[in-house]
Amino acid sequence: MNQIDLTLYLVLDPDLCGGLENMVETARIAAQHGATVVQLRAPNQKKRWWLQAARQLKAVLDPLHVPLIINDHIDIALAVDAAGVHVGQADLPPDAVRTLIGRHKILGLSTSNAEQLAAVPLDIVDYIGVGPVYPTGTKPDASPVIGLAECARLMRAKACPAVAIGGIKPGMAAPLIAAGVDGVAVVSAICGQPDPAIATRQLLDEITGARS
Amino acid sequence: MNQIDLTLYLVLDPDLCGGLENMVETARIAAQHGATVVQLRAPNQKKRWWLQAARQLKAVLDPLHVPLIINDHIDIALAVDAAGVHVGQADLPPDAVRTLIGRHKILGLSTSNAEQLAAVPLDIVDYIGVGPVYPTGTKPDASPVIGLAECARLMRAKACPAVAIGGIKPGMAAPLIAAGVDGVAVVSAICGQPDPAIATRQLLDEITGARS
Repeated sequence: MNQIDLTLYLVLDPDLCGGLENMVETARIAAQHGATVVQLRAPNQKKRWWLQAARQLKAVLDPLHVPLIINDHIDIALAVDAAGVHVGQADLPPDAVRTLIGRHKILGLSTSNAEQLAAVPLDIVDYIGVGPVYPTGTKPDASPVIGLAECARLMRAKACPAVAIGGIKPGMAAPLIAAGVDGVAVVSAICGQPDPAIATRQLLDEITGARS
Repeated sequence: MNQIDLTLYLVLDPDLCGGLENMVETARIAAQHGATVVQLRAPNQKKRWWLQAARQLKAVLDPLHVPLIINDHIDIALAVDAAGVHVGQADLPPDAVRTLIGRHKILGLSTSNAEQLAAVPLDIVDYIGVGPVYPTGTKPDASPVIGLAECARLMRAKACPAVAIGGIKPGMAAPLIAAGVDGVAVVSAICGQPDPAIATRQLLDEITGARS
C-alpha cells in the first residue's frame, strides 16, 4: 500500500477561501505550518478551473513535500500527476479508480457507516475518510452525522489508516485521536480563517498532544 | 486525424429520456435507426452513475458500430474505453485531453464564435460542435444563440468536420446542411420523443435529402 501521513488533512474549499488565488495561498500557509496532506475539492467548478487550480497547488505543495489529493476527478489527477485521489461512495468505485491511476498513487475512500467500512477493498484503498463526525456546512450532500462515539466504535473495526472528517474545530481533534483515528481532516477550521497559519498550528498541536 | 461520421449525432439527456434505463433504450433505438454517433452528457450525475450508464451504452452501441462519446469526463471515457470524448470551452483544454486519451480516441470541441473557431488546434481536435444555433432548453449554461446565418458564415472558415447543435428540430436540419455543416446534433428531437425510431429516421431522411 501507499503511505500517507494523515495527521492534519486540509480539504480545500475555494468559496470559503475566497477564490482560487486565496485558496492556493491558504494551502501554501497550511502546508508550511504543519498540514500533512492537501485535498482539492470543488464540485461546483468546471474542469478548466480544476486544471489551473491543481497545477498551482502542485507547484506550491511539491517543494514542501505535501501530497496533493484530487477529489472525484481522476482525469484531473492524471493530468497534473497529483499524488493521489479521494472518492466518495457515489464516485467511481475503487477498483475502477485503481485501474486508472496505477499502483503508486494514493487512493482514499469516504465511509460513513459499518457496512461501508466492511466493504472497503483493503488491497486497493490506501486510507479511508470516516464521517461526518459532526454537522458540517461545507458539504450539502453529506451523509448523516455519526458522532464521536460511533466514530470510536467504527475505529475498533478499522483495517487501514483512517482520517476523521466533518465539522471538526479546534478542541474536537484530541478526542478523535483518542478514538483511534490516524488524523483529522478539516475544511472551515483552516479555509477562510483570519490566520490560517495559527489555525493550522493550533490543530497540529492538539493532535500531537493527544498522541503523546 | 480520427474519422467520425457526424451525420446524425445524438446527445443523450438522462432526465429527458426518463432515467438511465430509458436512456439506454433511446440510444439503442436511435442507433438502430440511423444515429451515427451517441454522446453521453449528464452534468448533474455522479461518477458511479456515469460509469454504469457508459458501460450499458457501450454494450448496446458497440455491436451497432456506433461510437460512444463521453462529455467532459475523460476519466469515464478511459474507464469504459469509449470511442471518444467531447469537451467545451470551460472543460479540460484539448491538449490536456489528447495527452490523457492518446492518439486514437475521437476528440470533439464545442465552439460558438469565430474566435473560438480560429483557436481550434487542428492537429489535436477531430471535429467541432458549432452552436447553439437555436435556443435550447437542455443546456442552461449554453452560449448565446448564433442563428443559421452566423452558422453558415462560421462554416465558410471551418477547417475540420463540424456538427451543428442547439434547438435543432425536424425541418431545421436541411438548411444547416446547406449552410455547410457535416452533421446535426440533437437532444430533445430524439430524447423523450414518443417514438425515437420515427424521430431518428425523419431527421436522417431530412439530412440525406439535403445532401443529394
